[in-house]
Amino acid sequence: MKLWQKATAVKQEVEEFTVGKDRELDLLLAPFDVLGSLAHTRMLHSINLMTAEDLDLVHQELKNIYREIQSGKFTIEEGVEDVHSQVELLLTRRIGEAGKKIHSGRSRNDQVLLDLKLFIRSEIQNTVEEIKELFYQLISLSEEHKDKLLPGYTHLQIAMPSSFGLWFGAYAESLVDDLLLLLAAYKISNKNPLGSAAGYGSSFPLNRQMTTDLLGFDALNYNVVYAQMGRGKTERNVSSALASVAGTLAKLAMDACLYMNQNFGFISLPEELTTGSSIMPHKKNPDVFEIIRGKCNKLQALPNEIALITANLPSGYHRDLQVVKESFLPAFRELQSCLSMMTFMLKNIIVKDNILKDEKYSYLFSVEVVNNEVLQGVPFREAYKNVGSAIANGTFVAPEAVNHTHEGSIGNLNNNNIIGLMNEVMQGFNFLQVTKAQEELVAD
Amino acid sequence: MKLWQKATAVKQEVEEFTVGKDRELDLLLAPFDVLGSLAHTRMLHSINLMTAEDLDLVHQELKNIYREIQSGKFTIEEGVEDVHSQVELLLTRRIGEAGKKIHSGRSRNDQVLLDLKLFIRSEIQNTVEEIKELFYQLISLSEEHKDKLLPGYTHLQIAMPSSFGLWFGAYAESLVDDLLLLLAAYKISNKNPLGSAAGYGSSFPLNRQMTTDLLGFDALNYNVVYAQMGRGKTERNVSSALASVAGTLAKLAMDACLYMNQNFGFISLPEELTTGSSIMPHKKNPDVFEIIRGKCNKLQALPNEIALITANLPSGYHRDLQVVKESFLPAFRELQSCLSMMTFMLKNIIVKDNILKDEKYSYLFSVEVVNNEVLQGVPFREAYKNVGSAIANGTFVAPEAVNHTHEGSIGNLNNNNIIGLMNEVMQGFNFLQVTKAQEELVAD
Amino acid sequence: MKLWQKATAVKQEVEEFTVGKDRELDLLLAPFDVLGSLAHTRMLHSINLMTAEDLDLVHQELKNIYREIQSGKFTIEEGVEDVHSQVELLLTRRIGEAGKKIHSGRSRNDQVLLDLKLFIRSEIQNTVEEIKELFYQLISLSEEHKDKLLPGYTHLQIAMPSSFGLWFGAYAESLVDDLLLLLAAYKISNKNPLGSAAGYGSSFPLNRQMTTDLLGFDALNYNVVYAQMGRGKTERNVSSALASVAGTLAKLAMDACLYMNQNFGFISLPEELTTGSSIMPHKKNPDVFEIIRGKCNKLQALPNEIALITANLPSGYHRDLQVVKESFLPAFRELQSCLSMMTFMLKNIIVKDNILKDEKYSYLFSVEVVNNEVLQGVPFREAYKNVGSAIANGTFVAPEAVNHTHEGSIGNLNNNNIIGLMNEVMQGFNFLQVTKAQEELVAD
Amino acid sequence: MKLWQKATAVKQEVEEFTVGKDRELDLLLAPFDVLGSLAHTRMLHSINLMTAEDLDLVHQELKNIYREIQSGKFTIEEGVEDVHSQVELLLTRRIGEAGKKIHSGRSRNDQVLLDLKLFIRSEIQNTVEEIKELFYQLISLSEEHKDKLLPGYTHLQIAMPSSFGLWFGAYAESLVDDLLLLLAAYKISNKNPLGSAAGYGSSFPLNRQMTTDLLGFDALNYNVVYAQMGRGKTERNVSSALASVAGTLAKLAMDACLYMNQNFGFISLPEELTTGSSIMPHKKNPDVFEIIRGKCNKLQALPNEIALITANLPSGYHRDLQVVKESFLPAFRELQSCLSMMTFMLKNIIVKDNILKDEKYSYLFSVEVVNNEVLQGVPFREAYKNVGSAIANGTFVAPEAVNHTHEGSIGNLNNNNIIGLMNEVMQGFNFLQVTKAQEELVAD
Repeated sequence: MKLWQKATAVKQEVEEFTVGKDRELDLLLAPFDVLGSLAHTRMLHSINLMTAEDLDLVHQELKNIYREIQSGKFTIEEGVEDVHSQVELLLTRRIGEAGKKIHSGRSRNDQVLLDLKLFIRSEIQNTVEEIKELFYQLISLSEEHKDKLLPGYTHLQIAMPSSFGLWFGAYAESLVDDLLLLLAAYKISNKNPLGSAAGYGSSFPLNRQMTTDLLGFDALNYNVVYAQMGRGKTERNVSSALASVAGTLAKLAMDACLYMNQNFGFISLPEELTTGSSIMPHKKNPDVFEIIRGKCNKLQALPNEIALITANLPSGYHRDLQVVKESFLPAFRELQSCLSMMTFMLKNIIVKDNILKDEKYSYLFSVEVVNNEVLQGVPFREAYKNVGSAIANGTFVAPEAVNHTHEGSIGNLNNNNIIGLMNEVMQGFNFLQVTKAQEELVAD
Repeated sequence: MKLWQKATAVKQEVEEFTVGKDRELDLLLAPFDVLGSLAHTRMLHSINLMTAEDLDLVHQELKNIYREIQSGKFTIEEGVEDVHSQVELLLTRRIGEAGKKIHSGRSRNDQVLLDLKLFIRSEIQNTVEEIKELFYQLISLSEEHKDKLLPGYTHLQIAMPSSFGLWFGAYAESLVDDLLLLLAAYKISNKNPLGSAAGYGSSFPLNRQMTTDLLGFDALNYNVVYAQMGRGKTERNVSSALASVAGTLAKLAMDACLYMNQNFGFISLPEELTTGSSIMPHKKNPDVFEIIRGKCNKLQALPNEIALITANLPSGYHRDLQVVKESFLPAFRELQSCLSMMTFMLKNIIVKDNILKDEKYSYLFSVEVVNNEVLQGVPFREAYKNVGSAIANGTFVAPEAVNHTHEGSIGNLNNNNIIGLMNEVMQGFNFLQVTKAQEELVAD
Repeated sequence: MKLWQKATAVKQEVEEFTVGKDRELDLLLAPFDVLGSLAHTRMLHSINLMTAEDLDLVHQELKNIYREIQSGKFTIEEGVEDVHSQVELLLTRRIGEAGKKIHSGRSRNDQVLLDLKLFIRSEIQNTVEEIKELFYQLISLSEEHKDKLLPGYTHLQIAMPSSFGLWFGAYAESLVDDLLLLLAAYKISNKNPLGSAAGYGSSFPLNRQMTTDLLGFDALNYNVVYAQMGRGKTERNVSSALASVAGTLAKLAMDACLYMNQNFGFISLPEELTTGSSIMPHKKNPDVFEIIRGKCNKLQALPNEIALITANLPSGYHRDLQVVKESFLPAFRELQSCLSMMTFMLKNIIVKDNILKDEKYSYLFSVEVVNNEVLQGVPFREAYKNVGSAIANGTFVAPEAVNHTHEGSIGNLNNNNIIGLMNEVMQGFNFLQVTKAQEELVAD
Repeated sequence: MKLWQKATAVKQEVEEFTVGKDRELDLLLAPFDVLGSLAHTRMLHSINLMTAEDLDLVHQELKNIYREIQSGKFTIEEGVEDVHSQVELLLTRRIGEAGKKIHSGRSRNDQVLLDLKLFIRSEIQNTVEEIKELFYQLISLSEEHKDKLLPGYTHLQIAMPSSFGLWFGAYAESLVDDLLLLLAAYKISNKNPLGSAAGYGSSFPLNRQMTTDLLGFDALNYNVVYAQMGRGKTERNVSSALASVAGTLAKLAMDACLYMNQNFGFISLPEELTTGSSIMPHKKNPDVFEIIRGKCNKLQALPNEIALITANLPSGYHRDLQVVKESFLPAFRELQSCLSMMTFMLKNIIVKDNILKDEKYSYLFSVEVVNNEVLQGVPFREAYKNVGSAIANGTFVAPEAVNHTHEGSIGNLNNNNIIGLMNEVMQGFNFLQVTKAQEELVAD
């Protein structure tokens, strides 16, 4: 069953090939499809395209379906093409003629557009929740271990003293910048495409502002051609933001793998969080970090994949856009699971102390010595040469302690300022307003 | 159950996160895992690491499992980590102690490497079969429609006369070049990594040449560190070759969508091979071509995804490589289905005749007129200016017919030479030898 | 000459290979390097690391150098490694010892970081100016041609009526969403990394807030490890935003090429804006649109290139980051030239009228007829079937006019609302504040 | 001056924007453009489109120009669009009318196609030479250091014994597989597109086999539509092969950076091959390896960039293809310089001995001990558990020596077999035949 059933049956091969994984993927869109229909029909009623009785019938049943979806009872039946057809089929089965009327004034194109936007909005919210948890875990580790020094490397060469306070805090601050991108992606997504029909609008006197308000959108995608053009583009921009979060996770995972390596040995994990080898009985492998790194690098490839699918397509809908869903829809859950596993691992991480006691790290302090000379009046370039000679002659002696005091340094982490930046970005998301709008729509 | 079971249980969260989709994906590797064990155990026996009785027991049961896989009865049980563990579990359940001995002298790492190589080899063969079908379909259409002219475009502007003979034939020849890359990918894959263990070899006196011969490989991946380094690299190189085929399909699909557009109208499809719209009753959409285009562009993104996952990883195995399987293993079936749908669509394609009768195409012949002047002795640059003026003045008259005679032109398609190139590449694949080796291994 | 001159000379081969294109690329960073030094030295003075006399000497000369850069007289001399070395060399040459002191309390790493941020900030401003021009050009064309109808396509098949008003307006609205991403990129870039030294901070009592204020930054990159981690990450995120703008341009260029194709023939260009062919005297090719499309697709590949260079690098500086500059620094000018050429072309575009008079477009109106039946009470699904039958029987008659009235439709373009969205985003950029800060720094 | 000069002048802005970097890039194509014209004109003479006198005049002058190019005296003048126009301009200036006749029977499109193929063929040869040098350097290091053991890592965790013999040899074998792809790319490129004109052939009775033979091509790109379709596709496939080589180099560079890190300390470099820091006087940084890694990762992004530029373009020439040249043409030199710098660095590399004496590496030998038990009859799974317990109890004792004997293992590197594989691939390149053909063309 499909929304566009024609007299001539479509060949089975064509049907199977074109439907692809849609039945499976569309389940993720189901609740949003119902929300969209609830708003759309109210609007249809307001412009006299649906009677009060029909609206009532339709709403009651749509809310039933919504509850079935929430409780996991909803499926897309064999032979039904997509979620939109399934919802319409259920309605028609249960309430008859009235069910057929919900499709007036819209097209499958703007239904998919709408479902995607609502889905993205919701999944960004879920992702932000996970980011927040990881952020505060990192801040808390940064504070807890702020006095434990680490060697800092440049060019992978021993460079200058660093600390666990800096290391954990750096990734917290990285997440704040990632959220700036995610907020932009959210704002791009939080605009209403409904009413664009097949991408060229409708001759019905639709009230698009009304559905915009009902669904809690910030604004409309005004121009109907642009509303359609947003398909593919929105997914790519959202996935660029996800890729930025993924980049932060992947780098943290890389550091963790390196720090767990026995030549570094800066951190370790309880044995039950490592995995073993089929032939080496001594192995305790950091597989979780490796899988996070792998999955997050895969996520970083997503914007490019979408770009390749959509590049050089002229304006107007093309079926190619369906293929974007295969990688895009699951990307949120994938990233969320990486975020939550990272938080989980960090809750159990074991941090080594007194690392810098090892004499191989003494050169870490060469800059301190240079700086001390400078503070005593030696021009920098000369102090630099003096210390260089001391190192070459083997007469270099490392100082006992590190005294970094400026903003964001070992002795002054500024974690509160980083939390301040976080709060500022968080205020940009209007999750409450959105949740309220959605709850009102499905309330009895 | 896992091959590396340790005393301390691994946390459920870690287990689920790290196993990921392996149980599902590994089913594709199952027959190859058994083939590998058949060869490995014969070799173990040859170096006195397995008794004749054990070998006999193990082989009988492995062949049973192989038949179960072939008939679709094999599954990876809940709680079993991967295909390697499942096969070993079944063996031990059915024949006891002897089953435990098959893992001597190898690691899960080289087992996966081996399974992947055997899988790739087999899937390249399947892909090549589909390419061949499409190739001959294209050649046959080229011959059938060789006299039907088409406008040829450059810069999407009407340029010079072309023909359906040229159009179909071009894509046939494109597949030949794609096969050259696929052959290189095949040769890279057709080397034996077994015996590399965890990537550093083994203290057992393995006979790697023996398993190489038994499994029908061209040669060994000699250096064991390189054998392991081939993971990720092989997948990327193979997917570059798949991407080349996909590029040919995507371009053909793009042309087909354009030619079906009513402004062009060069080809059409029987109604049952098109799809409709939920709001526009007149639509006959070329969705199959669009889905092919979308899927093939997605396939073109695969080498880059693998590059991103593997970039900057130092040598030695990393668990990240498991993530590569998620996109890589299904890529073959995806491409094969695009190939077979393209062949199916082309068998039903309807080609329009007399397209160039439309007067908007008359300028197509401007070069013919220039060339005629040149053949009468006018220097090219002057002839070019003369015709340019005629066009500007509206006095240009198009000739009646096209007379292209050189190799590969409208009147002389050289399809036989293209078939010759095809045959030449095909001879590079040693599918027969491989099939024979594999059949011998599983024969009773 | 380099900032880190050692006793042992570095091999010429190594020197050339590692310096690469830096001397050429660094010219783009020169004014920002001087601005950074002006702020840094004021701060050094405030913490008693530079005397008032030295500060005065240094500032006078830095401002001279700044003016030399502005007037195009500044070069990086043969044998000088980069812009930082060149500026320090000029200073020392001209004012002696005092010149050597500007490097106290910072590293080349945070100098490059700072220069990049200031450069990005400035180039985003230039890019936004170009976007604004194109935006208003599009809005103006949308208004001018709002009554000229176009066929709208889905699946590249004739679908429903569209208009030039919608077409131009869609791209204007697309630029607004692109600006949302660019604003996020701007905010990420507009934070001060100075004081992070080699990525681990400094033992000098630096006042990082002071340089933040002097340079007009929104905030600090607090955590010094994160400040360094921003290298590569910032470039990738900024280039994702540039890629979004590029995506809009590339799609518009694709549409333009298609619409100029003779089978469509919706727009044309004055002859002096087209190019010809070396053998076809009738050709008028839309090369500018093709080059825009090509360059913009190349720009869309940039975030991925940066991701590949930086993927899996552990935290801490790596020299690989220098390679990012080669593609990243020129990307802004490249995009700006595409934007300005697009504006230029659109100023000269010729739009055809009465396109829909051609009878091949009559089916465009099938949905109108369906909707009319619905407005007369026929359930949608039945009306859809009726019109489908009329089309199949050849009895379908197209209505005379289009009557679309809802928000964002042919008859109600909502361009003012789109301008409203534009103004809202524009308010997020604090260009004035930045310009003021920079002017104060270089003022005498 | 351009080959397609029209009556109406093209606007300066359009001219500059569309010519772009062509004048600079085309210099790389100059010698090949002349070779192509030498072959083309001989063919024109053979079909009576050029007199013997004109041919003689033209050939003499083309050979002069060829020598000017070889000696670096050739430039593309201001105001001349590309190399093809420049060569024709020089000819006409020097020999008058006859110079105008060389363009008969070809288009700029097939000239560029031809130049690119000849350029690729030549640059692949140069690249292969560099690969060979690196290959033998690696083999020689592998042999020289075959007895020096290294820890082998999996999951970046200490795993099993490895050796410098294995490490260097692995990268040698990796280059062999890279060459298989490069050979496929070479074969794809070594086919003659000349005679395809603007992509639709010519009405002249061209003899394409003749130019194929004269230029030393393996075969024709027969179908003229395919010949044009090869543009972009060839570049992408060639760059996939370059990316494979680059992947090998980048991984080796990553290993080298890690091994030079003080926590590993497996290799070092003479001081004059390292670089220093502007603030840390003790630094000896492996910048060359980092730049190689960065540049090679950038090269790995190239196939994707080309895919993005060409994706979804319908068949027929588009000007976008010019943009491909910007990144593609310099890629060869870039890779060659990375190859030669890698060889240079390896010639100077210092390898540490007795690394495994450090007790942290004792667990490396756990598999050896397991295997020894197995060789004494203990089932593998039990031996594995025994050793696991010994490690847990602290009673594990490492054996004194490693005894790996199988093919490709520490004690049996099989470097000769790897050389054998190398020789086999090398035989596929027909450089001699190509060089001979080209030399004959330019001989007096």
